[in-house]
Amino acid sequence: MNRQAKVTLVGAGPGDPDLISVKGLRAIQHANVILYDALISGELLDHARLDCVKIYVGKRAEQLSASQDEINRLLVDYAVNYGNVVRLKGGDPFVFGRGGEEIDFLREHNIETEVIPGISSSIGLTGLQQIPLTYRGISESFWVITGAKSDGSMSSDLELAVRSNATVVVLMGYGKLREIVALYQRHKRGDLPVALIQNGSLPNEKVVLGTIDDILDESQERRIGVPAIIVLGEVVAKHHEFNKIKEQALAL
Amino acid sequence: MNRQAKVTLVGAGPGDPDLISVKGLRAIQHANVILYDALISGELLDHARLDCVKIYVGKRAEQLSASQDEINRLLVDYAVNYGNVVRLKGGDPFVFGRGGEEIDFLREHNIETEVIPGISSSIGLTGLQQIPLTYRGISESFWVITGAKSDGSMSSDLELAVRSNATVVVLMGYGKLREIVALYQRHKRGDLPVALIQNGSLPNEKVVLGTIDDILDESQERRIGVPAIIVLGEVVAKHHEFNKIKEQALAL
Repeated sequence: MNRQAKVTLVGAGPGDPDLISVKGLRAIQHANVILYDALISGELLDHARLDCVKIYVGKRAEQLSASQDEINRLLVDYAVNYGNVVRLKGGDPFVFGRGGEEIDFLREHNIETEVIPGISSSIGLTGLQQIPLTYRGISESFWVITGAKSDGSMSSDLELAVRSNATVVVLMGYGKLREIVALYQRHKRGDLPVALIQNGSLPNEKVVLGTIDDILDESQERRIGVPAIIVLGEVVAKHHEFNKIKEQALAL
Repeated sequence: MNRQAKVTLVGAGPGDPDLISVKGLRAIQHANVILYDALISGELLDHARLDCVKIYVGKRAEQLSASQDEINRLLVDYAVNYGNVVRLKGGDPFVFGRGGEEIDFLREHNIETEVIPGISSSIGLTGLQQIPLTYRGISESFWVITGAKSDGSMSSDLELAVRSNATVVVLMGYGKLREIVALYQRHKRGDLPVALIQNGSLPNEKVVLGTIDDILDESQERRIGVPAIIVLGEVVAKHHEFNKIKEQALAL
């Protein structure tokens, strides 16, 4: 039985169930067991076989439903006992998804592993809003940073990022927005365009556009909350509503 | 007729046709016209309707088949005359794909636009190799940089990137590998693990693993060529063959 034990990490994409890859969808259809996170669409799980065992192991922010150690053990146990396990994760499994730790643990237990990448929120949600992460002459790179370090502090990468021309995307960083704004203001970048995207790609999506100097007010006014991504860079001004919003702000 | 004119930018993903999104595949199936790049799988185009007009506008490196201005004009002309046009691009349309310029041009001509994101090679090809872009305690961010600036020079973002803890992925940068190695060596990072992935996710995929100090020799020995991506960071050591390769090198 152990011979067929296998875990496939599948990236579900940024929210809209149709943004999973064809290959990822097929893995769901053939799974004996699916362990899935919070924010995974029920529609995706409906593609599983009728006898598929579906187990919720999600966590939202710091509210753990299952600890990472528990998830690792469950993956090994189900793979050994059921064979073909899919570990379904939001976005891409290796973009702050702790997929690397799961792979390490599975290898230590001689379980075969496969990874099917997904569309990361960092690329997918900006793309759907038609904000280009790169643009000739404006931004020749993009930098994706977590706002939630394991010790709760702000990533030191942001200190370098603020000095670069990269488009910066902060995931799981909405709680750090005030600190990020202060950092950019210290570097005299108050005019830099910023976008906040909450529940991106879903029917309840909210988008707030502004600059470093006014984004805190804008976000309060529009009552943005988690989960939201933060996009910082001149390319944000390419959003089709950015100029309209700036004109309204100047008219006040 | 103009009322239904619409162009949908679709990201085809990193190569393997099964890595396109379900939504992207559906857009191909409904297109009246598809304008597609080099490196797009013929299998994807086979999903189009029998009467779909398929036009190759690809470019490889600096060998232009069609200039960007020409592509922009073609997009407008076909949208006006045929209605529903899909612009099919490798990876994600906004990651060095000049998708932003195409959107701008279409908006200037009052053509409706939509973007369906794709799995960028930067995330997808590393994921398939089970190299985690981020890993708790090792890398809390990743930075995707083009190796091919429009003026031919190396991106100045690399000068900052070498001083960060970010995992760095260089796309279209294989021709700059010698310069990148020299830069990392000047910053005393000769031990940093590096991966080169050529034709990622395709049957002729080649992967070379090494460190800054030996990657040039390794790449010559394994005859790596374009198109290849460069991955620089401690996370590369998580590749399942990395230690084996290091031991072989030490045994010589």
